[in-house]
Amino acid sequence: MRLQSYICGRWTDGNGAGRPLRNPVTGEVVAEADASGIDPDAALGFARNEGGAALNALTFAERGAVLKAIADVLAANRDKYGEIARINSGNTAVDAAIDIDGGIGTLRYYARLGRGLGEARTIVEEGRDQLAREPVFFAGHVWTTRPGVAVQVNAFNFPSWGLWEKVATALLAGAPSVAKPATATAWLSHEMVRDVVASGVAPEGALNLVCGGGEGLVGALRPMDSLAFTGSAETARALRADANILARAPRLTVEADSVNATIIGPDAGPGSALFDLAVREIVKALSVKAGQLCTNIRRILVAREHRDALEEAVAARLAGLTVGDPQDETVRVGPLVDKAQQAQALAGIARLGAEARIVAGGGVPETLAGADREAGAFVAPTLLSCADPADGKAVHETEVFGPCATVMPYGTLDEATALAARAGGSLAVSLFSNDPDVLAETALRLAPWHGRVMTVDEEVGRNHTGHPIVMPQCVHSGPGRAGGGEELGGLRGLRFHMHRSAIQGSGTMLDRLEGLCARAAL
Amino acid sequence: MRLQSYICGRWTDGNGAGRPLRNPVTGEVVAEADASGIDPDAALGFARNEGGAALNALTFAERGAVLKAIADVLAANRDKYGEIARINSGNTAVDAAIDIDGGIGTLRYYARLGRGLGEARTIVEEGRDQLAREPVFFAGHVWTTRPGVAVQVNAFNFPSWGLWEKVATALLAGAPSVAKPATATAWLSHEMVRDVVASGVAPEGALNLVCGGGEGLVGALRPMDSLAFTGSAETARALRADANILARAPRLTVEADSVNATIIGPDAGPGSALFDLAVREIVKALSVKAGQLCTNIRRILVAREHRDALEEAVAARLAGLTVGDPQDETVRVGPLVDKAQQAQALAGIARLGAEARIVAGGGVPETLAGADREAGAFVAPTLLSCADPADGKAVHETEVFGPCATVMPYGTLDEATALAARAGGSLAVSLFSNDPDVLAETALRLAPWHGRVMTVDEEVGRNHTGHPIVMPQCVHSGPGRAGGGEELGGLRGLRFHMHRSAIQGSGTMLDRLEGLCARAAL
Repeated sequence: MRLQSYICGRWTDGNGAGRPLRNPVTGEVVAEADASGIDPDAALGFARNEGGAALNALTFAERGAVLKAIADVLAANRDKYGEIARINSGNTAVDAAIDIDGGIGTLRYYARLGRGLGEARTIVEEGRDQLAREPVFFAGHVWTTRPGVAVQVNAFNFPSWGLWEKVATALLAGAPSVAKPATATAWLSHEMVRDVVASGVAPEGALNLVCGGGEGLVGALRPMDSLAFTGSAETARALRADANILARAPRLTVEADSVNATIIGPDAGPGSALFDLAVREIVKALSVKAGQLCTNIRRILVAREHRDALEEAVAARLAGLTVGDPQDETVRVGPLVDKAQQAQALAGIARLGAEARIVAGGGVPETLAGADREAGAFVAPTLLSCADPADGKAVHETEVFGPCATVMPYGTLDEATALAARAGGSLAVSLFSNDPDVLAETALRLAPWHGRVMTVDEEVGRNHTGHPIVMPQCVHSGPGRAGGGEELGGLRGLRFHMHRSAIQGSGTMLDRLEGLCARAAL
Repeated sequence: MRLQSYICGRWTDGNGAGRPLRNPVTGEVVAEADASGIDPDAALGFARNEGGAALNALTFAERGAVLKAIADVLAANRDKYGEIARINSGNTAVDAAIDIDGGIGTLRYYARLGRGLGEARTIVEEGRDQLAREPVFFAGHVWTTRPGVAVQVNAFNFPSWGLWEKVATALLAGAPSVAKPATATAWLSHEMVRDVVASGVAPEGALNLVCGGGEGLVGALRPMDSLAFTGSAETARALRADANILARAPRLTVEADSVNATIIGPDAGPGSALFDLAVREIVKALSVKAGQLCTNIRRILVAREHRDALEEAVAARLAGLTVGDPQDETVRVGPLVDKAQQAQALAGIARLGAEARIVAGGGVPETLAGADREAGAFVAPTLLSCADPADGKAVHETEVFGPCATVMPYGTLDEATALAARAGGSLAVSLFSNDPDVLAETALRLAPWHGRVMTVDEEVGRNHTGHPIVMPQCVHSGPGRAGGGEELGGLRGLRFHMHRSAIQGSGTMLDRLEGLCARAAL
């Protein structure tokens, strides 16, 4: 199978040899992708002009209807996608559902938001300021669509969700998308876009796909375009330093490395319901999607007196997890995406090993269900323990992108929040306690360093949505090391594709203007 | 007079020779500034830690009280500042008032906003999303102060307003400021900060000043710090490419070149009140602050049939303006800030001259009131006329930073909006018409390319606040060429110094959290 790119309104072959996509269980080649030889200026120009005009002709409600139609197409093909996710990503059924249903759910959520915004194309903020002494001159603020194309570079771990969460916000905002999935797992993105294009539900030019290297896309960006990048901090640095990005200054948002923490409050000791909830969440972190979630728990901060009990409880649960080929329904932990990621994860565990001891796992599992140790990209669910995290460095700065986390004891919650901040900015942090004041105050202290703070008390119980799960209602972002971008968060996600302007004028003019706009805050 | 820097809680001398500050009327040296040898890591570290902690201890209301106290100190010394503005910037009394009263007014405005936010230090947004099926798990969004220092690099044309508009928003948000005024006119900034420091009204570390080159400041920025730059596109490019900014990715906002337009609607013909209002605004653009405002009108779009009448009306008014030493009270147009700026402006007029003919002015005035042509940095108020603006390039891209604008005829309002966008993104555009529907619809079409759209109809009349005037209620920004930043806009200005996080948890937790926050949208 050879993946194509959908640009300039047609499916296009690259003219190079192509890069192989593999099954991470067996190592066999399942597809290849190549985009060399495409004309990036033509691809972005077509999206910018044709796609931009087509979307601009639609109201928010009509764009919402497009998103709903895309979601319906995808839902009708759900089983096929699950099979691709298993073959190309080594996903279990649960893993695949997070990616595929996460994408479809995000599209449906933004479809509803579009319906709510109604028959407008622009947004006006609440409130009007009187600027002159006489009540004849006022100011309001509006959001209008930036006249550019949104280039979206996604990571290998979410070929569905990563694609659609970015397309959903861009499309509702009126910005055409050129999506470039990570090559290693691009098959699923390709299949989905092929189905959507065949269905004809998306306006021509609004949804474009580049499968392969994507050479030249960044160089074709113009000032009103944008680039949303999800991936490594290293690539993010290279993008920031790109000559064209420096010269033309398109909007750039980055979601990069994140060494997220969970904090188990001092009141959540062994035997408590909260302790069990925390253990359950940690075991998920070390099994679901083989740990390959950017929001995943990497550091476990626990009151010093509860550390041993926590490590024992988690290790006992890990021992019961089956690792292997997700075709086997007893398998809870699949492989990493490829041998290169496996090698990186093992190297990362070795770096952590200099500051922490291994409690469980730590390498390639001895036994695998239905899979070969050499051929597959497996890493055993790994728990480490760092006795003195205040002195640690690697444990706070190394993101092992696999089923791996490090336990760190703390004395007081102040110490715990300080340790959480040692990662220099993260996507998500969670906090288990039954004291609502402690939760609220600690959440506000954690907030400047985190894009999302999840708090769990017994009122929430098992009804939370999960530490790593990105809900479209919530902003998905992280300051500092995590890249400083902001995605999703309901209508907040439209901000990246729109521009805020002050509009000054008479009350009569502002009345007419407001009549043309939906009212919202981004 | 030798300017010092206020860093690490004390006034500090540079150890270099110093750069001269001059009187632009006479060329004589009036002060010198030097900051070489200061320790940028220590300066930023003191602000970040001491200033950050001091501001964090204050509520929004208390920070507002600090801003009011600063404004009171400045108001008490207003006359002294006007004299410095005349001597070091060549300001007339009107010019100086825009800068000085603009700064004081912005401080007072943010002081009132702080009082309105009350006894909180964090902000919660309106609304809560239910995330689980059971009504036990919700999400809200909060804004908390970024734990960094705000470095503020200002332009020479607003040594007061530029300083205080940035300090006001940072201080209210809880971020300590390290301000670096442009050296050429730093005397006024220095005098103001000296008075404020002497008064003791600002918390130690919250307000810091670097007078001189500011070497090393950018290299000392850390990931949670920010840099707000107002100045040339060329320097902005260099900042974006700075190795430390690429490596650590502090927040960066830029306000750079802008070739702003005014559009005189087809219904605003000669003899109408709107025509006269437009002429009045254009004459201001060619006289106030000798045209040195980043938001100033640089392009005048007029219906083809009214072009001659407009040029005649403006030229007649320009002929009556006295240019010279602002010590002479009949002088309406002072000098540019220095001979280098004069040379740049004359070179810019020459570039425009390749695409437009000169209607009035065009060089150094033949006669000056109380000033010498050689010694002073004067440029005559200059009106050009470009017959075919659709074919022009320099006329849309050259910002002559002086009293200079180019008339361009258009056929339809669609052509006019397209011409306005040819600048590639601007800070401000204005539009004169009496049709409220035309105003509203055209404003929305102009909005994606502009930070602010001012519309004037007869209901507004002379009560508008002026095309170039940045009101603190309105966002001050411009996409594309203008830098893509966003400042001011009431509470919106706090956004740059704060971080938005999603907070998930039980209803009880969120009730407590909201109790700790002010409610607002940024």
